[in-house]
Amino acid sequence: MSLFFEDIELGRVIELGGHRFGAEEIVAFAREFDPQPFHLSEEAARESLFGHLCASGWHTVSIWMRHAVAREHRIRAELAAAGEPAPGFGPSPGVRELTWPTPVYVDDEISFTTSPQTKRVLASRPGWGVVESLNEGVNQEGRTVLRFFGSLFVERRARAGA
Amino acid sequence: MSLFFEDIELGRVIELGGHRFGAEEIVAFAREFDPQPFHLSEEAARESLFGHLCASGWHTVSIWMRHAVAREHRIRAELAAAGEPAPGFGPSPGVRELTWPTPVYVDDEISFTTSPQTKRVLASRPGWGVVESLNEGVNQEGRTVLRFFGSLFVERRARAGA
Repeated sequence: MSLFFEDIELGRVIELGGHRFGAEEIVAFAREFDPQPFHLSEEAARESLFGHLCASGWHTVSIWMRHAVAREHRIRAELAAAGEPAPGFGPSPGVRELTWPTPVYVDDEISFTTSPQTKRVLASRPGWGVVESLNEGVNQEGRTVLRFFGSLFVERRARAGA
Repeated sequence: MSLFFEDIELGRVIELGGHRFGAEEIVAFAREFDPQPFHLSEEAARESLFGHLCASGWHTVSIWMRHAVAREHRIRAELAAAGEPAPGFGPSPGVRELTWPTPVYVDDEISFTTSPQTKRVLASRPGWGVVESLNEGVNQEGRTVLRFFGSLFVERRARAGA
């Protein structure tokens, strides 16, 4: 298990774990960042296109992020324990085709995944490559609630001298 | 001023207001959703590609969202005070080309905008149209820190009988 550019396997689907979206946290996120009625109360949501209280899409993607970072922390801890080198954390060049095909309703259990799709090296940033992954969240009925392609700068083994 | 599909002017750049990103809120958001070292402490960030503590991209876009919703609330309050009809709040079909071209560092003052680019009506959802806008955040030096195209379902005047 490694996080270096060279070791990332294309096409593999990586399970990031699950999260149950409680009503309280849905409302707390919405109050701070996305106070539209259907994210704030069941009553107001009933009159909307959604029909029921549901999570902000920015909340859903932020919880995906939490799970992706947690996985990276777990692998780094294992590498450190084994005395093996780990790459630097890399920033993101961006995201494309971010959609929320099905709403996340209260108490939905969402399973998150990431799957590396393409890798490329850049002349402009020696020592680093770019990996684009397909990232998803799926609810307890198998419906996709989140889908996007996210890119990340990933350090190359060569650069770290490993 | 209205929020109905028919009344939305393409190409207009709408100022949504500004936000100063304090160190505390940058770290608070990162602890909950994106605990990468460069979002958690100045010290850890110094060793990263960023060089200094900076906000999670998901934080930046969530603050953009807060400003966009706040504007909608202001207009709805004006319409209500004038006894004029307002459309329903609409969900989002998605986002594309989301990038963070420049990091948001501590105490950066970010100005947010939205600019409607295209409008279309859908046979599949009578009474509603889709508006795609170019949404941006720019820092105090005029550098773009956030840029994405976001779509929104927007109710048509005809449907509301207005």
